[in-house]
Amino acid sequence: MPTTLAHVISRVRPADEAAAHKTQALLDHKTKPPGSLGQLELLACRLAAIMGEAPPPRLAKTIVVMGADHGIVEEGVSAYPAEVTVQMLANFAAGGAAINVLARQVDATLHVVDMGARVAIQVDGILRRPVAAGTQNFLRGPAMSLEQAEQAINSGMTLALSLIDDGVNLVGLGEMGIGNTTSASALCAALLNLPAAQVTGRGTGIDEAKLAHKISVIDQAVALHKPTMTSPLHTLAAVGGFEIAGLVGVCLAAASRRVPILLDGFITSTAALVAVRLCPLIQQHLMASHRSVEIGHTVVLNELQCKPIFDLDLRLGEGSGAALAMPFLDAAVAIVHEMATFASAGVSER
Amino acid sequence: MPTTLAHVISRVRPADEAAAHKTQALLDHKTKPPGSLGQLELLACRLAAIMGEAPPPRLAKTIVVMGADHGIVEEGVSAYPAEVTVQMLANFAAGGAAINVLARQVDATLHVVDMGARVAIQVDGILRRPVAAGTQNFLRGPAMSLEQAEQAINSGMTLALSLIDDGVNLVGLGEMGIGNTTSASALCAALLNLPAAQVTGRGTGIDEAKLAHKISVIDQAVALHKPTMTSPLHTLAAVGGFEIAGLVGVCLAAASRRVPILLDGFITSTAALVAVRLCPLIQQHLMASHRSVEIGHTVVLNELQCKPIFDLDLRLGEGSGAALAMPFLDAAVAIVHEMATFASAGVSER
Repeated sequence: MPTTLAHVISRVRPADEAAAHKTQALLDHKTKPPGSLGQLELLACRLAAIMGEAPPPRLAKTIVVMGADHGIVEEGVSAYPAEVTVQMLANFAAGGAAINVLARQVDATLHVVDMGARVAIQVDGILRRPVAAGTQNFLRGPAMSLEQAEQAINSGMTLALSLIDDGVNLVGLGEMGIGNTTSASALCAALLNLPAAQVTGRGTGIDEAKLAHKISVIDQAVALHKPTMTSPLHTLAAVGGFEIAGLVGVCLAAASRRVPILLDGFITSTAALVAVRLCPLIQQHLMASHRSVEIGHTVVLNELQCKPIFDLDLRLGEGSGAALAMPFLDAAVAIVHEMATFASAGVSER
Repeated sequence: MPTTLAHVISRVRPADEAAAHKTQALLDHKTKPPGSLGQLELLACRLAAIMGEAPPPRLAKTIVVMGADHGIVEEGVSAYPAEVTVQMLANFAAGGAAINVLARQVDATLHVVDMGARVAIQVDGILRRPVAAGTQNFLRGPAMSLEQAEQAINSGMTLALSLIDDGVNLVGLGEMGIGNTTSASALCAALLNLPAAQVTGRGTGIDEAKLAHKISVIDQAVALHKPTMTSPLHTLAAVGGFEIAGLVGVCLAAASRRVPILLDGFITSTAALVAVRLCPLIQQHLMASHRSVEIGHTVVLNELQCKPIFDLDLRLGEGSGAALAMPFLDAAVAIVHEMATFASAGVSER
C-alpha cells in the first residue's frame, strides 16, 4: 500500500529543538550543579524534542518484537537451525525468554509479531502478520517481492499506529529470526556501499570459518542484486527480511506520531537505517540503547548519529538492550518532573 | 571503638567463586546463545559470589547517603558555599533532590545521615549521627582526631548492620558535603602516593584558576600530614571527612555480612579504597556503578579493579549513579530466576 506509506512519511516532522531547550532550562533550575547529571539530562532533552513537549511526559513503554525466517539460512550462515525461530516465538508467547523477563522488569508491554516464520504458529500471545513462510534465499534471487516488502512495512505501521492510539508513547524495537544478522549485514553493505567484512559479525556465535563463508555469501548476494537495488525499498526486498521490513514500518509510524524509537542492536538499527533512507527526518526520532558486539552495529549507529547509552557486550537481540535502557529514560523524565528547584528548596546557588 | 572495628573486619570472608560458577552454569542453560547477555551475566555471577548464593537472591536495595561539612572549604576550593550541605540534607529529607527521585524510580529505600554538618539539622527523615560540626581545615591541622574517625566508622557500621538485619541485601553508597571532593582527592593522593593533579577534578564545577588552587592546597596538605599518615586510619583522620569515614564503616559492615556494596562516584569509591586498605578482602565485595567525570574516579576504580557498568558523564554524587545502576542488577538476578531453559522451552541447541 504505497499510498499509506507515502501518507505516513508525509506526516513526519522535525524534532522540536525548542522543547529540548526548554527542558534544559527546567533542569538548570533543579537542585544540582548545572549539567551534573550529564547524559541523563541530554536524554530528557532528546525525549522532549522528539515528543514535542517540555517537560517530556511520563513514558508508556512498549517493545515490539518481530520474528521471521530467512531463506539465506540454507547457505549455512547461522550457528542455530532455522526451527529455532518458531521455537523462540513460542518461548516469547510462554513468557520464558530474556525479553519477557526484561520487559517485565522495566514495566514495558511486549508485543510479539510473527512476520513470516517458516511454520505457522498458532499460540496465544503472538500477533500473526506473516507475509510468507520465510523469505527466499537471496543468493538465488530476491528475498521477497516489492509487494511483500510493502505489505510487511504496512503491517508494522498499522500495528504501531494502533499501539500509539492505545496510549503508548515510547517504542522499543526487537527482533528474532535465525539468519537475520546475515540479512542485516547485506542491507548495510548495500545501503552504505561497504564490503561485507566491515559490517558482518558472528551473530549467535559462528566460528572463524563460518564467518568467512557468511561474508563471502553476503558479498556475492550484494553483487548479484546490485543492478536492481535502485531504491531503499528495492534493497530491502532484495536482501532484507520480513521482520526487518515490519520494523521499518514501526519506525515510520512512530516518528509520524512523535513517538521516540528506541533501537536495540544491529538488526533493529539496520531497520531504522532503511527507514531513514525512506524518510531522512526519521533520524531525529531515533534513540540508541546500547552498542552491541556485532561490528556492523557501530557502523550503523555512526551513520544514524546515535550515541548508545551503555555498552555491556550484549549480542542477543529480542529488544533486550532496548529494555535495559528504558529505566534511564524513565529516570530522565522523572528528574525533570520531580526534582525541587533551588528556589523551591531554599538551596543557595553559586 | 577499635574492638568493634576489628571484630567486623575479622568476619569479612572472600567472595564465593563457586557460587559465581554455578550461576554461570545456570545461565548457560537459558534460551539464548551462551554469553549473549554479556556483562549482564557477569553481574549476576558477581552478585552470587559476593552473596554466597547461587542463583543470587532477589535484591532488597537501599542507598545510604551520608553528609558532612569540611573545614577545608575555608580555603576557597568549592564552587558552592558551605551552607549548601545543610540545605541539601534538608532537600533530601523533603524528597526533592535527584537521589530521592532516582531511589524512588528503582525501588530502593533511602537513608540520609548527618555525619557532621556545620549546623545541627532537626528535621524528620535525617538520621543524626554528627561527630562534630564539620571537620577542621586540614591545611592547618588534622581534619579530625583518630577517635572521631573511629566514631564515624562505627556509626556507619552500626547503621549498615541494622539495615541488613532489617532485610537489606544490597547497599548503594551516596554522599553530600560541600568540599568533599577536596578531601577525597587528598585521601587518594596520600593513599596512592600520587600528585594531587592526577586525582583532582572540578567537583561541583570550579574554573581553571580555582582548580589550580585546589590542587595546590591538596599537595600542601598531603605534604604537611605525611609524617603522621602512618596507617589508613591516620590518613583518614588527617585529610578525610566524617561522611567518608561513615561510608568506610558501611563498606566494612556490608562486606562482613556478604551484602554487595554498590559504589557511586569519586567520593564513595575513595571511601571504599580506605575500607580496602583497612581490610583488603573488601575489594571482592565491591561493584562499580558508573564512571564519573572526576578524573580521580578512574584512578580509584582501577586501583579497586572495579569495572563500571555505564558512563554517562555524571558528576553529581548523592548516590545518583548507584541508583541508576540498580535496574541492571535487578535484571541480572531476574534473568537467572525467570528465564526458561532450552530443555523446559523445547528450543533446539546448536
